[in-house]
Amino acid sequence: NTPVKIAVANGDGIGPEIMGATLKILNAAGANIETEFIDLGEKVYLSGNTSGIAPDAWEAIRKNKIIFKAPITTPQGKGYKSLNVTLRKSLGLFANIRPVEALVPYVPSHFPDLDVVIIRENEEDLYAGIEHRQTQDVYQCLKLITRPGCERIVRYAFEYARAYGRKKVTCMVKDNIMKITDGLFHKVFDEIAVEYPDIQNETQIIDIGSARLAAKPENYDVIVTANLYGDIISDIAAEIGGSVGMCGSANIGNNVAMFEAIHGSAPDIAGQDIANPSGLLNAAVSMLAHIGQSAIGDKVKNAWLRTLEQGYHTADIYKEGISVQKVGTQAFADQ
Amino acid sequence: NTPVKIAVANGDGIGPEIMGATLKILNAAGANIETEFIDLGEKVYLSGNTSGIAPDAWEAIRKNKIIFKAPITTPQGKGYKSLNVTLRKSLGLFANIRPVEALVPYVPSHFPDLDVVIIRENEEDLYAGIEHRQTQDVYQCLKLITRPGCERIVRYAFEYARAYGRKKVTCMVKDNIMKITDGLFHKVFDEIAVEYPDIQNETQIIDIGSARLAAKPENYDVIVTANLYGDIISDIAAEIGGSVGMCGSANIGNNVAMFEAIHGSAPDIAGQDIANPSGLLNAAVSMLAHIGQSAIGDKVKNAWLRTLEQGYHTADIYKEGISVQKVGTQAFADQ
Ligand SMILES: CC(C)[C@H](C(=O)O)[C@@H](O)C(=O)O
Ligand SMILES: CC(C)[C@H](C(=O)O)[C@@H](O)C(=O)O
Repeated sequence: NTPVKIAVANGDGIGPEIMGATLKILNAAGANIETEFIDLGEKVYLSGNTSGIAPDAWEAIRKNKIIFKAPITTPQGKGYKSLNVTLRKSLGLFANIRPVEALVPYVPSHFPDLDVVIIRENEEDLYAGIEHRQTQDVYQCLKLITRPGCERIVRYAFEYARAYGRKKVTCMVKDNIMKITDGLFHKVFDEIAVEYPDIQNETQIIDIGSARLAAKPENYDVIVTANLYGDIISDIAAEIGGSVGMCGSANIGNNVAMFEAIHGSAPDIAGQDIANPSGLLNAAVSMLAHIGQSAIGDKVKNAWLRTLEQGYHTADIYKEGISVQKVGTQAFADQ
Repeated sequence: NTPVKIAVANGDGIGPEIMGATLKILNAAGANIETEFIDLGEKVYLSGNTSGIAPDAWEAIRKNKIIFKAPITTPQGKGYKSLNVTLRKSLGLFANIRPVEALVPYVPSHFPDLDVVIIRENEEDLYAGIEHRQTQDVYQCLKLITRPGCERIVRYAFEYARAYGRKKVTCMVKDNIMKITDGLFHKVFDEIAVEYPDIQNETQIIDIGSARLAAKPENYDVIVTANLYGDIISDIAAEIGGSVGMCGSANIGNNVAMFEAIHGSAPDIAGQDIANPSGLLNAAVSMLAHIGQSAIGDKVKNAWLRTLEQGYHTADIYKEGISVQKVGTQAFADQ
């Protein structure tokens, strides 16, 4: 079998460490992939390219169609555009899939039955990047919601639920206030839901919805929502399930897919071999499923679960009485 | 002493029940107030007034300057504007103050040390109500942030922290994406924070900030944030602290102030004498402090705490082994 070619970005901050650890594991598991490293992020930004992506990286991405990306640092300042957002939008990665599962008793959480997948619209909303200063004192940002955007993500959520045997899709919006934009999202959800009589559906206002998710996450199965709400509630689910450091995500488009951790580049702990590679590793598991190597993905996932069960924990989830040994990034990967 | 005149709206759904229960308690505690009932909400909407407020209610509000308001039902449909938002904006109620405190072991919560005050900007952001359909498929909503709006709410938060002996103010924004609008909020926060060297300050991105609030609320003291973020995180804090049914809020302007529960009108349980009046009661406690009757407010608050400690619980917080007796709205108020 010819290996599947993948564009790999080492990232900034803790990126290179967790990418190194993850690739070592994929290699040991026998993943049939060929990596092509691309430069993205800080180095590119600081070379004067405010997009953070050099032309040859674009070329490698367009050719390989699969990106495996460690977290990136975007420099402060109005001139620099978020690379994540540029990639998601330029490549049409309309769906951001974020599964979160508690691993009690191995990883501390108040919510042993948390098992939720957040399906986040990934191109529109306040992330459209349309912002301006209208007068000296008045600043505005445009929230954009389109019917095709809503249809695509809502349908994706129901298809996902069906494919993975999930029972319910919950839509979260704020359409008691944004009757036109969020109202459209809700309306499209209702329209499409009737095509899936085998899947339950419900809609909640984002304020009480995210509150209930934080208090009783076991009541949620699949959640579909707009970009910014999805950004917020996926961090909530991940953090109350153990840590944002544990979760990976898949950014899916019609031609290209990108896999990444949901957390940032954590420059404060970079280079110390203490970061948790689990988020990127779980992103790799999704990637392996996506490229038709799910048996190897399962092997990686099981090895990861076994390591956590045996109590080898990185500092972020280490807890006396639950953990057996506090390990660094590389030692965790070796286990 | 002449009694303080207050415009009182009975509200819709569970509104009349919890208002009746609350006024009974205020009366028993000796609150020196004179109530003038005004019509707001469903009845007014359905009479053809799409604002939900009749002219004579406006007059009573402008005259009394204090509104005590039970939850309102806004009818479905694009024509009807949210009354809450209309009141907040028309009356310049720029600050929405939402204290949340866990009452473990009397009220179940995973977070015994939760004690946070959320100070939410109350007029701007996506609540500006500027929304339109640009083409058949493209819908837009404008997020508005102004410098005076940011200055006013941030200063309010630091003054509040100082007045109530609180140690830290946390600002939450998404300025890695909205560099201009949320960037302004963050910038103004930093400018004003230096004027309060006695109060610690920090800024967090709303995704990880709300996740940390949900996972470790004891790390937060006062939080200041924009309107929609504040809407979401105040429901989160309230729900993980026990129930959204427990919390009241103060909407403060330069001339007028409005006090209300943070929850909605819950039409599904209306008229059954099972709703928890605690949210509205806590709003009343804030109102009493506001009108210079804080001794009576303390008395009410202590009676409420004592009732909870004795285990008289409404159905929403009832839990076997913690509660002693499940009581209805009126029986709870009588206790
Ligand atoms: C880094 C940031 C631009 C990004 C986002 O807001 O989407 C991150 O929070 C995420 O969730 O992937
Ligand atoms: C009812 C609704 C308009 C309101 C809001 O969004 O502000 C409510 O959720 C609140 O928090 O007071």
